[in-house]
Formats: sequence, C-alpha cells, structure tokens
Amino acid sequence: MYGRLIAPEIEELIAARDFATIRDVVLDWEPVELADLLADLREESRVVVFRLLPKDIAAESFSYCEFDTQQELLHEMAREEVGALLNDMSPDDRTQLFEDLPGNVVSELINSLSAEERSIALALLNWPEDSVGRLMTPDYVIIKKHWSVQQALDHIRNYGKDSETLNYLYVTEHGTLIDDIHIREVLLASPDTRIRDIMDEKVESLLATDDQETAVLAFKRLDRFALPVVDIDNKLLGIITLDDVLDVAEEQATEEMQRFGAVEVLDEPYIDVPLFELVRKRATWLVVLFLGGFLTATAMSAFSSTIDTAVILALFLPLIISSGGNSGSQAATLIVRALALGEVTLSDWWKIMRREIAVGFILGLVLGILGFARIVIGHGLDGTFHPESTWIVATVIGLSLIGIVMAGTIAGSMLPLLMKRLGFDPAASSAPFVATFSDVTGIVIYFTIATLLLRGILL
Amino acid sequence: MYGRLIAPEIEELIAARDFATIRDVVLDWEPVELADLLADLREESRVVVFRLLPKDIAAESFSYCEFDTQQELLHEMAREEVGALLNDMSPDDRTQLFEDLPGNVVSELINSLSAEERSIALALLNWPEDSVGRLMTPDYVIIKKHWSVQQALDHIRNYGKDSETLNYLYVTEHGTLIDDIHIREVLLASPDTRIRDIMDEKVESLLATDDQETAVLAFKRLDRFALPVVDIDNKLLGIITLDDVLDVAEEQATEEMQRFGAVEVLDEPYIDVPLFELVRKRATWLVVLFLGGFLTATAMSAFSSTIDTAVILALFLPLIISSGGNSGSQAATLIVRALALGEVTLSDWWKIMRREIAVGFILGLVLGILGFARIVIGHGLDGTFHPESTWIVATVIGLSLIGIVMAGTIAGSMLPLLMKRLGFDPAASSAPFVATFSDVTGIVIYFTIATLLLRGILL
Repeated sequence: MYGRLIAPEIEELIAARDFATIRDVVLDWEPVELADLLADLREESRVVVFRLLPKDIAAESFSYCEFDTQQELLHEMAREEVGALLNDMSPDDRTQLFEDLPGNVVSELINSLSAEERSIALALLNWPEDSVGRLMTPDYVIIKKHWSVQQALDHIRNYGKDSETLNYLYVTEHGTLIDDIHIREVLLASPDTRIRDIMDEKVESLLATDDQETAVLAFKRLDRFALPVVDIDNKLLGIITLDDVLDVAEEQATEEMQRFGAVEVLDEPYIDVPLFELVRKRATWLVVLFLGGFLTATAMSAFSSTIDTAVILALFLPLIISSGGNSGSQAATLIVRALALGEVTLSDWWKIMRREIAVGFILGLVLGILGFARIVIGHGLDGTFHPESTWIVATVIGLSLIGIVMAGTIAGSMLPLLMKRLGFDPAASSAPFVATFSDVTGIVIYFTIATLLLRGILL
Repeated sequence: MYGRLIAPEIEELIAARDFATIRDVVLDWEPVELADLLADLREESRVVVFRLLPKDIAAESFSYCEFDTQQELLHEMAREEVGALLNDMSPDDRTQLFEDLPGNVVSELINSLSAEERSIALALLNWPEDSVGRLMTPDYVIIKKHWSVQQALDHIRNYGKDSETLNYLYVTEHGTLIDDIHIREVLLASPDTRIRDIMDEKVESLLATDDQETAVLAFKRLDRFALPVVDIDNKLLGIITLDDVLDVAEEQATEEMQRFGAVEVLDEPYIDVPLFELVRKRATWLVVLFLGGFLTATAMSAFSSTIDTAVILALFLPLIISSGGNSGSQAATLIVRALALGEVTLSDWWKIMRREIAVGFILGLVLGILGFARIVIGHGLDGTFHPESTWIVATVIGLSLIGIVMAGTIAGSMLPLLMKRLGFDPAASSAPFVATFSDVTGIVIYFTIATLLLRGILL
C-alpha cells in the first residue's frame, strides 16, 4: 500500500542519484512495506534500493518478497552479494525459496553459502516435499533443567540473537526433547527459580516426516505460536513457527476452493499463470464433465417421443434441471465446509442424510408451489397452450421440482462424504459432479412424471 | 481426540465417586484437551469434572469450549461459581461468549462480575459488533521510555501475570502510544540499556472502531502476534492477539464459501442449525435463482418453432448449456479467490478480460471439436437422424460450444469484479448467478446458430 504511493518518488531520487535520502526514507519502514516497495519499483531500481538496506533488514525484506521479485533480485545481484544475502536469511524462508527455483539454480546458490549454512540448507531440503521437515528452522534456544531462571535469561541474551523465536525455550537432555517452556513462565518467575521447577514435562511436538497438513491441524488445536519438531527417537531437530504454517493453511484453502470449482490446483497466483497452463488446468475437468454430460443427451433421447409430441415440456427443462443443480451445490458447499472445519464426520452421514431429505422436501415444495402458480397464472392467461392442459403441465412441473430438488440435496450432501470415504478430497469437483448428476436425474424425473400424467392428454 | 477415548472411563470414576483420581488424570491435560473432554461428557458429569479443575485452568478450558457446552455449564453452575469463572476469563474471550448469549442473560452475568471486571466488560461490549474493539483485551504491559531493561524485566515479573501476551510491551506517554517493543529486544539487550535506546518509534496500530476485516488484513500484512488498539487521539485502549483474529478469519472464509454456494451465512455449525433455519437460509437464493431461471423458459419460447421442427436440437441442450455453466464457475472460482488473496484488483479487469477471452476461446474450441467429433461418429453411425443433416447438427453444436464457453468464462470472471465494484461481496452467489446467466445466453447462442445454419434443411 505504502510502497505504491512512494515508488515514483523513489524512482526520481534514483535518477537524481540521491541515495542518502532514499536510505533515510526507507529505513523508517517495516520489512513487509519494503517488500511492497521493491515489488513496485522497476527492475533496475529494485537492486539499487536493495543494496542501500542494512544486511539484516535486506534479508528480512527479501523473505517477504513474492517469488518473482526474489528471482529478479537474485538475477541482478553479484554472486558474492547473493551468498551474503542467503546466509542471512532464516533457514525456513530459504527452503521455501529453494523449493520454487529450478534444481540447477538451487545447487549453484547452495554452493554460494557458507559451509555451516550449506549443511543446514541441505539437511532441510533432504526432507520430503510437503513434510514438516521442509518448514523447520534449526534456530532455537535450548536450556538445561538444572539452570536457574537468571542463567536462562543470560543464555538468551548471549545466544538468542539468531533464534527464530524467543517465545519458547526448549529443555533437552542428550539431545532428547523433554519440555518446552513458554518465555512467559521464565519472565514471571523469580531469578533464582530452577528451570526444573517451572517445567511441566508436557510437551507437544511434531515429527519431521509428518505431513504439513498435520502441522496445520496441530497449531489450530493447540493454539501455539511455535512447535518443536523431533525424529522418531524424540531428538529435537528444529522448530516450526505459526507464520509458515499459516502460509501452508492459506495455500490449502486456495487449493480446496479451486478443486471445488473443478480447476486443477494452480501453482502460482492466477495472474502469473501462463495462458497455456491456465487452459490446461481447466480443460481436464471441463472435458471430463462434458463427456459425462453426454449422459444427458442419452437420457433425453429415451424420451424423444414425449418431447416430440409435447414440445412445451422442453421449454421448462433448463429451469427445472438448474433448480436441482442449485440445490445440490448449496448442499455440497455446506457439507464440504463442515467437513473441513471438523464440524461433521463420516459417522454423521445418516444424520446428514435425514436432514437433507427433510430440507430437500421443503425446498422442493416451495419451488414446486411457486412453479405451479407461475404456470397457471402466466401461461393459463396468455393462452400458450390449451386451457385444459395448463393444470396438468403445472402439476408435472410442481411434482418434478419436489423430486429434482430432493435428488439434488441428497446428491450434493452425500457426494462429498462418499469422496472422503474413498480417500479423495471431499472438495474435489463436488459442485460440477453434483450438477451433472442432477441434470441427468432431473431429466429422468421430469419426463417420467410428464409421460405418466400427460398420457392421453398432450401425448 | 484424547477426550473421546477417556470420557467413558471418567463417567465410571464419577459413578464410583473417585474424584481424586479424576483430578490426577485431568491435571496432566492441556486446556484444549480438557475442553474436548467436557464436550464428550454427559451434561451432569460435565459440571462435576469442571468443579475439580483449579480456577485458572477451569477458566482457560472454558474459553476453549464450544458455545453450546459453555451455555450448559453456566446453566449447571451456582451463581457465585459463575461470577468467579467469568472474573477469571480473559476479557476478550468473555466478550465473545457474551456476543452469542441472549441480552437478558448477559446483563445478569455482567451483574455477577466484580466491579472492576464489570466496567471492563461493559466498555468492551460498548464497541460496535464486528469492530476491533470487541476483540480487545485491556490486559497488557506498559513500560516507560526512561526505564532500564532491568526495570522493565522487574516490572513484567511483578505486574505481567494477567497480561494476555508478554510478546510485546507498549511504551506510552500520558496514555498516548509511542512505541511497541518486542520482548525479543528486551531479552537480547544488556540489563542497563535504557528502553528509549531500543525504541524505534515505528508503531503499527488499529483503531477500536476499525472493522474486524481490517484487523485480519493488518495481521496478515505485518506478520504479528499482537497489535495495539488506539482511539483517534492515539490513546492506547487495548491489544488484540492473533488467536482471536484467526477465529475471525476462519469465520470469514466460511462465510465467503457459503455465499459463493448461494447460501445465506449460517450462524452456527451446519449440524447445529435448526432444520427450519437451514431451509430459510437456502430458500431465499434458491427462489431468486428459480424466478430468474424463468428467463430460460422465455428464451426457449422465442425459439419454440425451431424446437418444434427439429426436436433433435433439444436433446443436446442440457449438455451445451451446462458446459457454459461449468466454464463460468471455474472462472468465478479463480477470480473470487484471487480477489480474496489480493492477487488481482479491480484495476486488473482488462487484463483479466483479455486472458479469459483467450482461455475461453481455446477451451470452447477443445469442447467444440470434441462435440463435433462425438456427433459425427456417434450419431452418424447409428442413424439417429438423416446422414446429410449429421454434419450440420455437428457444426451447430461445435460452433455453439465455442460461443457458450466464451460467454461463460467472460461472465464468470467479470461478475465477481462487478460485484466488488458495486460494493458487494464478490463471492456472493457468483457461481449460481453465472450459471443462470450462461443458461440464458447458452440457449440464445445455440438456437440462433441452429436457426441460421439449419434454415431449409431441418427447419
């Protein structure tokens, strides 16, 4: 926001070579604001401003930049500058950057790191993609249980500078995690208290091999800012912090919504995805649904003689089947979200089914009465068809709506549960699948009722 | 999770009146786990276990309970117990509870508070609903700029116990906020450093009257765990912490998804909403869309003579129009999410439009070719219609698909932008609106092309 206002002025200062003023101006800003500014500057100006920042601020601002900006900055900088910058980044942010870069670039960048940082970077990249290990940072403060609170505070003062967080201190014995202590406990205790006396020996930790989704759930459940990460022997390997987990959660929410809308998950922001990629990600499901949609033509052709003799029925078909689709997509939306929030589980299926049958019946009844009234009032008056058949057509439409809306709600609520039961993502394309399903059932219900009621009248 | 396993055993211990064992067992648990356990117990057992908890743990566990459980517990407890519990709760969690209770219950509960807590509670409830003020807690640590770091640490030890967070300390002068200092700075500085020397006088704050959505965006942008809240004169009123903001964000995400699926926002979890309420929340949009859907019948009737003479066209109608709906809902999904993440803004509309025209054309071409091929191969062979008309019908379907898919993608991408421009939620019912719109345009495009190409052949 702030950056957007000032970028042209910074560009002017660069043109005037007034670097001292730029430095004064930008030093007042937060690293996030600097990242915004860098994004708004022209590529040539970007590296100029970046070089004016103090080392640690530069590294922090760089972490906040979008991947594209990061890539362009790396490209503009000299090799030694790049090495220094990457050495100063937190290991977890650096892993995120490496994940998105091509392999050959990563190996070159890793070579530009100091020996110590290089081994840290390699160890983190060694964990499987989407594992908790990839989000870890090895920068945390370890304390010992026989220390006094004062010793712990002195230790933090001397060795805590690089720690990702000082909110939690970790108590280990021969590398094994035995407790995590909130800094609050230390700050509130008298200086001569022993650490062992404020320990509660309750420690929640994650395995480095755990899925990142497990981490999101654990953070949500435990309401923590950081959690320790251990191996299967309970040796402390690193910590992960809430900010990284929130990024993962946001990505998951985006993926869930994209799957729900029948799009394959985009790897980049919408606006940055290359056109052809965008087409490919959408074509797959669109084609699957299109081919599935031919079932509607098959269903229609089974009733072609009915349509042939009572074309009037075809006029209301799109209206009727889309009501089933809409009620189905409502139900699917509610159930997918309730599953994601843990409000319902698979074992609730029968309870959900009962509710949806009732809801579907009432909603169908409401639309059915409206549809009946609309046909009788609208079409009975303007003489579109024989007065004696108006009541019959209205009845067909009214009854069909009850059946179709019920079919939609039941399909919409059960499909996400079925998907989950089969081990798939419940959100995956639920809405369009439900739509195709209710198109087909809608056609069958509508024309079956029509054939039965109109026999001998219109047919 | 943990609670679910042990609840029956706890019930047994209660039956055996072995309260000492229960106390021992539950004291090992985290407050979140205790909240889970309380939810799983029978109503009569719940208050028994709750009474065994130490006062502060009880208050914290209570904060984690779902609203229903809270209400039942309050109901079971004696008046003095309720007063003591509410006095011990953090003011922000207490405000959340009060928000959901009926007005007469709230005023009774407020009367049971101590004089001090009562005035805090009333002050917080005085802020408008959905404002930052409602999320505030007045429990924070204030320090002065002439103090030394050691003085600050001593002050925290003596007065920090009730503070919601010790992560940030706030520097004020005559009540005016002049800086926030991360505890990290204090922990890393030598004890005789003056606070003024570690101040940067950069402080980001929220106004108590700000919308809660503003708070969500500010926390995201600034990557903070807590932010100070001030009035328009920059007087410090309270702080809000990330956990409360995350709850707001999750609620917003649910609301966004429910609106997108054309459901009015549910105030409770799906499974707890009374049946009639669930019907009402879904009926409104369903009826609006149904009445809008009559436009499809109007569009159809404009082409009734075409349908009359070439019923074969009606067979493919559901397939054709649902392809437009599907491509439109893909586009709407992508744009709604990109808007929510700030990846695109209104000013990008032309860029988005150009992309979607291109994407729509390619996707339409793909489906068009598939549709053409399927008709020629499938229907040319089985003799559904005259061989000479197969090619024409296939061409009608192929061309229509290009037009309909393009109309869908354009409508799907532009509608959310239009809604936002008009000041509405871009997510609001976008998907079904797009569906109805593309149903109508689909009918018009399909039958117009058919009328033009089939003139003199089938018609």
